[in-house]
Amino acid sequence: MRPPRILHVGAPLALNGGALLRDWPIAWRSWGRLDADGGNAVLVCHALTSDCHVTSAGEEGTPPGWWESIVGPGRAIDTNRFFVLCANVLGGSDGSAGPSSPEPGTGRPWGMRFPQVTVADMVQAQTVLLQHLGIRRLRLVVGGCLGGMQALLWGVRHAAMVDAVVAISVRLASSAYSIALWDVVRRAIRQDPAWRSGDYYGGAPPGDGVALASAIGLLHWMDPALMERRYGRRRREGGGPAGQAPLFEIEHMLEGVVARAAAGAGRIDPNSLLLLTRAIDLFDLDDGAGGIAGATEPLPRHLVVSYARDLRYPPEEGERLTQALRKAGAKAKHRTLSGQVAHGGFLLEPAPVGALIQEFVGP
Amino acid sequence: MRPPRILHVGAPLALNGGALLRDWPIAWRSWGRLDADGGNAVLVCHALTSDCHVTSAGEEGTPPGWWESIVGPGRAIDTNRFFVLCANVLGGSDGSAGPSSPEPGTGRPWGMRFPQVTVADMVQAQTVLLQHLGIRRLRLVVGGCLGGMQALLWGVRHAAMVDAVVAISVRLASSAYSIALWDVVRRAIRQDPAWRSGDYYGGAPPGDGVALASAIGLLHWMDPALMERRYGRRRREGGGPAGQAPLFEIEHMLEGVVARAAAGAGRIDPNSLLLLTRAIDLFDLDDGAGGIAGATEPLPRHLVVSYARDLRYPPEEGERLTQALRKAGAKAKHRTLSGQVAHGGFLLEPAPVGALIQEFVGP
Repeated sequence: MRPPRILHVGAPLALNGGALLRDWPIAWRSWGRLDADGGNAVLVCHALTSDCHVTSAGEEGTPPGWWESIVGPGRAIDTNRFFVLCANVLGGSDGSAGPSSPEPGTGRPWGMRFPQVTVADMVQAQTVLLQHLGIRRLRLVVGGCLGGMQALLWGVRHAAMVDAVVAISVRLASSAYSIALWDVVRRAIRQDPAWRSGDYYGGAPPGDGVALASAIGLLHWMDPALMERRYGRRRREGGGPAGQAPLFEIEHMLEGVVARAAAGAGRIDPNSLLLLTRAIDLFDLDDGAGGIAGATEPLPRHLVVSYARDLRYPPEEGERLTQALRKAGAKAKHRTLSGQVAHGGFLLEPAPVGALIQEFVGP
Repeated sequence: MRPPRILHVGAPLALNGGALLRDWPIAWRSWGRLDADGGNAVLVCHALTSDCHVTSAGEEGTPPGWWESIVGPGRAIDTNRFFVLCANVLGGSDGSAGPSSPEPGTGRPWGMRFPQVTVADMVQAQTVLLQHLGIRRLRLVVGGCLGGMQALLWGVRHAAMVDAVVAISVRLASSAYSIALWDVVRRAIRQDPAWRSGDYYGGAPPGDGVALASAIGLLHWMDPALMERRYGRRRREGGGPAGQAPLFEIEHMLEGVVARAAAGAGRIDPNSLLLLTRAIDLFDLDDGAGGIAGATEPLPRHLVVSYARDLRYPPEEGERLTQALRKAGAKAKHRTLSGQVAHGGFLLEPAPVGALIQEFVGP
């Protein structure tokens, strides 16, 4: 797989929290061709644990991307028709400025000295990339969860530039429950002695902490009814009751989640998880001038997608968001999907949301 | 506060899993007076993080017990009328045989060499205590969650001895979701380097692991709607966004939960949490001969109490249990309470369940 392209930006980025980010990189991938007038671009915003490898389309021998079945030639987001762009999120890892990127001056990884970023900062960083690429219009901005929050802010802050927004698994503002969940997830990472206050670069990353965090997260994105249907109380052959070897099938599944997360702690920087989950906490589209109320131009049309039984982003909150968008003048529709998976359905069962996107984008 | 009384049992206890427990202690407290014919006893079974200090009634200068408002003179479980007994659970700490109690032979704490106990073993240990005390009938067996599971097994396995059962926040068998939750909680404890494979006695207990476990648990027993009403997105004065100091009020609340749990890791033995949560996983009243189907005598009357919005013990599961009890011949009724708290309502908002118990016990 070829690495993402990287734009090194000299002009400082003024962050929401007051810090100035100097000499910052932003990593991105694209598919399809940009029209001569720069008017056929689609921006895909990735979620917490994804990156800009959206699809392998057009690159042979490459592993599938996280939205392989949605983005590609003839697919819901058609790369024969659109120039599709995805940037690694600011504050993340994998090439964009974040805790694992070198701090200008020292050249050493920022670690937890990297300033706290917000969703608005992520969007601002993307505008710089778009300007560089000569993109003047976005036919669509689309994303789920953290990506959906970015898509919503694109619609509100850059209404004149965006034709349409698809925001999946989102709400007006992160709930108390969501804040509590991420607080516990961050504790799990920070409590790993290998975390070393964020200065673990060059050594082993806090894999156990990330593994535990992923198990904590699973308890909240996987619908209890699905756990019951899929695993129930079925036991493993050879499991012991003493609590260390998986006795039940569902424990075996968790063991796999934990092992993959521990192995992936090198791929997704744990410090980025600390930073990005905090950005999710801070997200509030209802926050006076910074949110919907501050929009100065007619809002683009919106499709809001919720998943039934998603505890953090329930359909009633998707509806509330849709009403708020309409109240602000947007054409907005709300659809609720009810797949096997509650939160994360857009990643794990992409077909239904793909159909909604295709219909929304139109011919 | 006077310590609990302790009965040292010489006769070995044959555990469900095949092990024989020799020279085992069981700790207990009681209130009220046992009738000459031993027929006015009520057995209270405590939940995961409680112990046999149910009430301070009759003992001046003692801190309140975990069911202070329910058990005492003139209260729902009236100690003027009943001899009320509660034993520390087998496998727990605080005086009954468990990982922190001395292993016969070596005299050193058992640690994780203590055999895995089941809810049936807990009940069997209680029968030995009752025999010692000359109790031949139980007017009522009552408990919530792990205590409710014990109460249910009392009704099924010792039907001839029990008049009535009140089982709160229970279901026929632990769900996949519950098994997953406890798996993650146990991981949090075991990942604390201070856990030392369970051999931490004499040194510091794995307080950080227990603290994290308690925060993970809170995400599942506190109703998201209650979090929203009580804390919402309110911020703390002086909180920082960088993720370490509590920025939101709900994080401050969690900080308190975590600090109390870390401090309490000396009181509730962390190894006991590992063992007792596994006993909850293994609970299955639907498990052929060991469960309802194996009852050989007419079942006592039952009151099953559920709490609305309890994800692990939802009202529909309380109803399913009640139907199963009826099918087995018991007079059983099911009541659903909807307080502020979902799981744990019987501990944190005891008045409504107290009224139900009082009505059920009758004059």
